[in-house]
Amino acid sequence: MAQHDRARRGGFDDLTLQEAASLTSGSGTWHTTAVRDVVPAVTLSDGPHGIRRQNETERGDALGLLNSVPATCFPPAVTLGSSWDSGLARRVGAALAREASALGVDVVLGPGINIKRSPLCGRNFEYFSEDPHLTGVMGAALVTGIQSRGIGACVKHFAVNNQETDRMRISADVDEATLREIYLPAFEHIVRQARPFMVMCSYNKINGVYAAQNRWLLTELLRDEWGFEGVVVSDWGAVNDRVAALAAGLDLEMPPTGTDDQIVDAVRSGGLDEAVVLRSADRLRALAKRAASAERHQDWDVEAHHELAREAAASSAVLLKNEGDVLPLDPAARQRIAVIGELALTPRYQGHGSSHVVPTRLDNAWEALNAGIDEGGILTFAAGYRLDGEADDALREEAVESAADADIALVFLGLPDEAESEGFDRTTLDLPEAQLSLLRQVASRCSQVVVVLANGSVVSVAGWQDAATAILECWLPGQAGGSAVADLLLGVRNPSGRLTETLPVRLQDVPSYLHFPGGGGHVVYGEGRYVGYRYYDTLGTAVAYPFGHGLSYTRFEYSDLEADQTGDTDWTVSLTVTNVGARAGHEVVQLYVAFDEEQPTRPRHELRGFAKVGLEPGESTHVSFTLTGRDIAHWSTARGGWRIAPGRFTVEVGASSRDIRLRADLSTPGDGWAPELNAMSTLGEWLDHPIGGPVLRERLGERSVLASGEMSPTLLNLARGIPLLKFRTFGIGLSAEAVDDLVAAARNASA
Amino acid sequence: MAQHDRARRGGFDDLTLQEAASLTSGSGTWHTTAVRDVVPAVTLSDGPHGIRRQNETERGDALGLLNSVPATCFPPAVTLGSSWDSGLARRVGAALAREASALGVDVVLGPGINIKRSPLCGRNFEYFSEDPHLTGVMGAALVTGIQSRGIGACVKHFAVNNQETDRMRISADVDEATLREIYLPAFEHIVRQARPFMVMCSYNKINGVYAAQNRWLLTELLRDEWGFEGVVVSDWGAVNDRVAALAAGLDLEMPPTGTDDQIVDAVRSGGLDEAVVLRSADRLRALAKRAASAERHQDWDVEAHHELAREAAASSAVLLKNEGDVLPLDPAARQRIAVIGELALTPRYQGHGSSHVVPTRLDNAWEALNAGIDEGGILTFAAGYRLDGEADDALREEAVESAADADIALVFLGLPDEAESEGFDRTTLDLPEAQLSLLRQVASRCSQVVVVLANGSVVSVAGWQDAATAILECWLPGQAGGSAVADLLLGVRNPSGRLTETLPVRLQDVPSYLHFPGGGGHVVYGEGRYVGYRYYDTLGTAVAYPFGHGLSYTRFEYSDLEADQTGDTDWTVSLTVTNVGARAGHEVVQLYVAFDEEQPTRPRHELRGFAKVGLEPGESTHVSFTLTGRDIAHWSTARGGWRIAPGRFTVEVGASSRDIRLRADLSTPGDGWAPELNAMSTLGEWLDHPIGGPVLRERLGERSVLASGEMSPTLLNLARGIPLLKFRTFGIGLSAEAVDDLVAAARNASA
Repeated sequence: MAQHDRARRGGFDDLTLQEAASLTSGSGTWHTTAVRDVVPAVTLSDGPHGIRRQNETERGDALGLLNSVPATCFPPAVTLGSSWDSGLARRVGAALAREASALGVDVVLGPGINIKRSPLCGRNFEYFSEDPHLTGVMGAALVTGIQSRGIGACVKHFAVNNQETDRMRISADVDEATLREIYLPAFEHIVRQARPFMVMCSYNKINGVYAAQNRWLLTELLRDEWGFEGVVVSDWGAVNDRVAALAAGLDLEMPPTGTDDQIVDAVRSGGLDEAVVLRSADRLRALAKRAASAERHQDWDVEAHHELAREAAASSAVLLKNEGDVLPLDPAARQRIAVIGELALTPRYQGHGSSHVVPTRLDNAWEALNAGIDEGGILTFAAGYRLDGEADDALREEAVESAADADIALVFLGLPDEAESEGFDRTTLDLPEAQLSLLRQVASRCSQVVVVLANGSVVSVAGWQDAATAILECWLPGQAGGSAVADLLLGVRNPSGRLTETLPVRLQDVPSYLHFPGGGGHVVYGEGRYVGYRYYDTLGTAVAYPFGHGLSYTRFEYSDLEADQTGDTDWTVSLTVTNVGARAGHEVVQLYVAFDEEQPTRPRHELRGFAKVGLEPGESTHVSFTLTGRDIAHWSTARGGWRIAPGRFTVEVGASSRDIRLRADLSTPGDGWAPELNAMSTLGEWLDHPIGGPVLRERLGERSVLASGEMSPTLLNLARGIPLLKFRTFGIGLSAEAVDDLVAAARNASA
Repeated sequence: MAQHDRARRGGFDDLTLQEAASLTSGSGTWHTTAVRDVVPAVTLSDGPHGIRRQNETERGDALGLLNSVPATCFPPAVTLGSSWDSGLARRVGAALAREASALGVDVVLGPGINIKRSPLCGRNFEYFSEDPHLTGVMGAALVTGIQSRGIGACVKHFAVNNQETDRMRISADVDEATLREIYLPAFEHIVRQARPFMVMCSYNKINGVYAAQNRWLLTELLRDEWGFEGVVVSDWGAVNDRVAALAAGLDLEMPPTGTDDQIVDAVRSGGLDEAVVLRSADRLRALAKRAASAERHQDWDVEAHHELAREAAASSAVLLKNEGDVLPLDPAARQRIAVIGELALTPRYQGHGSSHVVPTRLDNAWEALNAGIDEGGILTFAAGYRLDGEADDALREEAVESAADADIALVFLGLPDEAESEGFDRTTLDLPEAQLSLLRQVASRCSQVVVVLANGSVVSVAGWQDAATAILECWLPGQAGGSAVADLLLGVRNPSGRLTETLPVRLQDVPSYLHFPGGGGHVVYGEGRYVGYRYYDTLGTAVAYPFGHGLSYTRFEYSDLEADQTGDTDWTVSLTVTNVGARAGHEVVQLYVAFDEEQPTRPRHELRGFAKVGLEPGESTHVSFTLTGRDIAHWSTARGGWRIAPGRFTVEVGASSRDIRLRADLSTPGDGWAPELNAMSTLGEWLDHPIGGPVLRERLGERSVLASGEMSPTLLNLARGIPLLKFRTFGIGLSAEAVDDLVAAARNASA
């Protein structure tokens, strides 16, 4: 390491310590620091689903969040994730990069890949899923797309930033297995596979240590274990102790607090190794060099990007319910269609906070439906409710009357604009009461009611879904959402989105309910690894709609599951999927690995693969997955690493976590790891051990109560839990020395 | 402290260091060490519900557990706790002490007061409840009873020993609030109120540190905070590092491992303060002195103690269900009664392990029923199943036939003897399948089926209870259980036991289900404070029978609830209870304090008082409770102490956690504590603060975006979560120096 640092130093002989220190904080809110002609500045910008190039001359609002240069507002992660289409995510990423380039941005601050621990998290619309595998794959695709043009991506918020409440101070208290299996794998996957330019540390503490100062997180895990070579940047304002952060592995403080002198002083006083400063400066220089090689463009095809946003929105909407195939509407059917809900005219298409984009244009469903319905169809519009949530009986009554005269009512519902934002969490899953009472009254007057939802995080449906004939969950669909919704309702496109999070029956059923958002500076992740479907499916709790669920206008059949073992812990799993309906459509084939245990020691099953396939009517395709040891491993606290236990497990293939179509029982010899026997190993562990067992029996010989058979099963069961060393004072007659001899004998026999 | 130690040393000038060290371990499995004529030995014995004076000359079995001198086997804690009768517990304690005295025992190793975190814990039969208040009151009564005769009690297992699986190594990983509110209060209450001679530390680790070596637990908490002055003894074999344990506050290692020299060497080499050794030796000497002043008896009234055991068993059985008032049976009714189940003849009346007692006699229900039924009644007996669980069709068919001819069937069911023991946990809540299939067939042939249960920990009833007309849960009723059961069935006594733990519908509904018993050396207490009814009632989860439930042969009405405030945080709560039925009986009036929150930050309600009252038909009585600040406080991690928040709460009085009869809404100004504002206090905390808010507004003046009104509610909501210091780089325009000035100004204004 010292050798390495000296070598690096060589490249920096031209930088003074002060200059190196200056590189470790920005020169302004959106720029890194330049050093003479040696290191150019790099421009950063918010933009997980659209570039928020802030107007730096006019603030516009207090935090400067709403005043940015127009850019395409693609669907946010909640929506794009629901497409389960990594190719689409890559294309969106490439389009983001093109706009970044045109707007002079070198690194896009996204994607956000935190796990949706609670549906209440205010920033869930910026995240993909409750599942780390899905998050990792979709996030990696977006990063790969962005970086395909040389623009940098910055995955965030590293790590365990799963709520907004007190996010700048709270400690997320999480056990190691939960970190490794739930909250870290998406980061790990993206860092290893997509090699993002940057990683942004989160505001919060993890088990008491601020992410920005967490050496385990930023150095041991991220760099030493996962091989990250880019720049770690603070979330904006996340640094509390400049020197501690740099020492822990944080390279770049943003925005700058004018504290570079603290770095220099710490080096001079011996409180900070100069090599640490130089190493971070080196990483900033490498970043600048990497950024300089990006494609450079002056503009982009605004119309083409809008169309991509429309495709993304259409591919991501989830058809939750479709009784009697009420959808799609036939544009030529000359029906009376009552379009109800202000959101059909004034769409909600993105959330609040640093991800807020000023769009290049904005579609609405009312206009798009009018454009899509053939002559002879009659469309009416009634607002039905006010967007500010205030009751308005006149609006409601007008809408109900319009439904009474209609063949079908399209009711647009959604969360209010102010409900979802960075910076605070929700406290309820409910839609506004004014909207729900409108829906109930509409349903009492019209027999076919299609609900179209706009929301960036889960809303409860259990209380009202019986009033709806069909439900189309569009999430926040971006600037082209209005057109995309019309495409789906009218059958121009076939819905193919799938739930990336479970819709629970009640808020009280949510696994983190009793532990969210914590208080007194701590949030205890009490539900552990049992997040989302991992909880509901392990407990058999009723849900409104399961993880992975989504209907289509066609139907798919699964057949011919095969699992070919290619190694002790590797398989190729393949199957055939057939479109047995009358329309072209896309299916999302999901692969879960299941361990069905009487007393669960891990989630009942976990997503390990998925594939989105497009099929014409009657068409079949072959889908195959690779299953590796990591897919069947769990994090072993005892080992301090991943472990593959020997035994049986099941591969499940299906259309949701609760719609498993095919199963294959497999087994593995495991990875061979077992804890070494020692004096504190229990009698049971000794007796069961292939080497230690015989050694123990032979040594005890005649003296052994085990050998004499006088021990009742109950007493033996009791005794099996006692560490061998403890028998020095219990009945088995073993001295501490005898136990030491046994341990040595077992080790010798193993060697 | 140094002064104190020197003073103590003065009293020990007659002891060498070697002698002092020798006092800190026993002289054998059941005796402390004597030092010449200066310190006599003290004899200890297992015996939370009966003295297990081990025969020290004959081992009998491998661990010596089954071979002890006969003593009264009182009902174990699971049963006695269900009486909710502290007076009864005191009398049982006094009887235990009398037998201890007669058997030469100075200190009784009990009661066990660990919380029933999971119904699967193998040792639950030795513990009182899922609730710390009930556990504390019943445990204190037992200790007081034992010590009323000068015999010592030893509360155990301190602390967080809530499972048997890997109990000697596992780390119970629990957050601070959960420790303080759930797992420690019973210990605290008993130590403060009943002043036990001894406390026994548990085998397990707590947050990574063995209880035996846990200085925070054994010294800071137990002695410095709670004022414990007695001896801390290890659970048998719980010491892993002799010197570390002594330094942490463990006084006495049992059984001895012959390692006193390690103590002496550590003092001589400077690794251990001699004062630590002398202090523990001093405590052992004080213990010996205290023990020497006990009453001394040669024998006890075997018959009277058996009758007390019978009373205790009868007072503790819980009548879960009694459709059509099928119970009590009329002894004079000349009915045909089919007594079914081997357990009616061969009772299960205690659990396995160190608490196992050789009883002085043993009643069975079959004989007691025969004795209690008047001439003309016909009793038949059929075993129905084998106790070893093996299927026996002939036995079952014979029993079913006997039921077919009967007016009523009394079906005795229970857990097998080997299901419940110290040393291992259960993996299911189910009764043996052979018993359940018997029950279903009996119910198909006989319209009145009374199930009598014998089990030391919760069994599931949801799957079969519809087959039973009545269910009497007798737990493990001790040696006189057979007679007590007959007393209850025949109406000689009126059932008055209440559930001390919730009966869940499914094992999967148990709050610790996903976190029990852990693995890899750790068990994460993920459910936190939500143990038992605290969980079910906060979530509104369906249960089979709620905490506190139990029927009577009479009925009680509650009226006239009054709450008189006697201080800012103190009240006297009183009400009237009336027996409105036709029989004398006992009611258990339960008082809960409730905080009904949209997002729960604490359990929905918690037991804070109870009273068992006996009433003749038509009789009323006045019941009153004292409510103190501690009863409405929660553990504040931020404060590092108990906190009473200002606001409203509800006092609930009822007959179970889900049968609340009376309510009173109260409010408190709180204890006045609030966190001091500092630079990391959020904008919201500043704005809401009575002193800091005006200071902030005044300082910001015209510059404040808050004052200008330009901030939207959504942005303001976002900004409120940001610590003031962070605004140095955000839009509000505050330098670090300005924030320092604000903090100082707010402090000055507070002063």
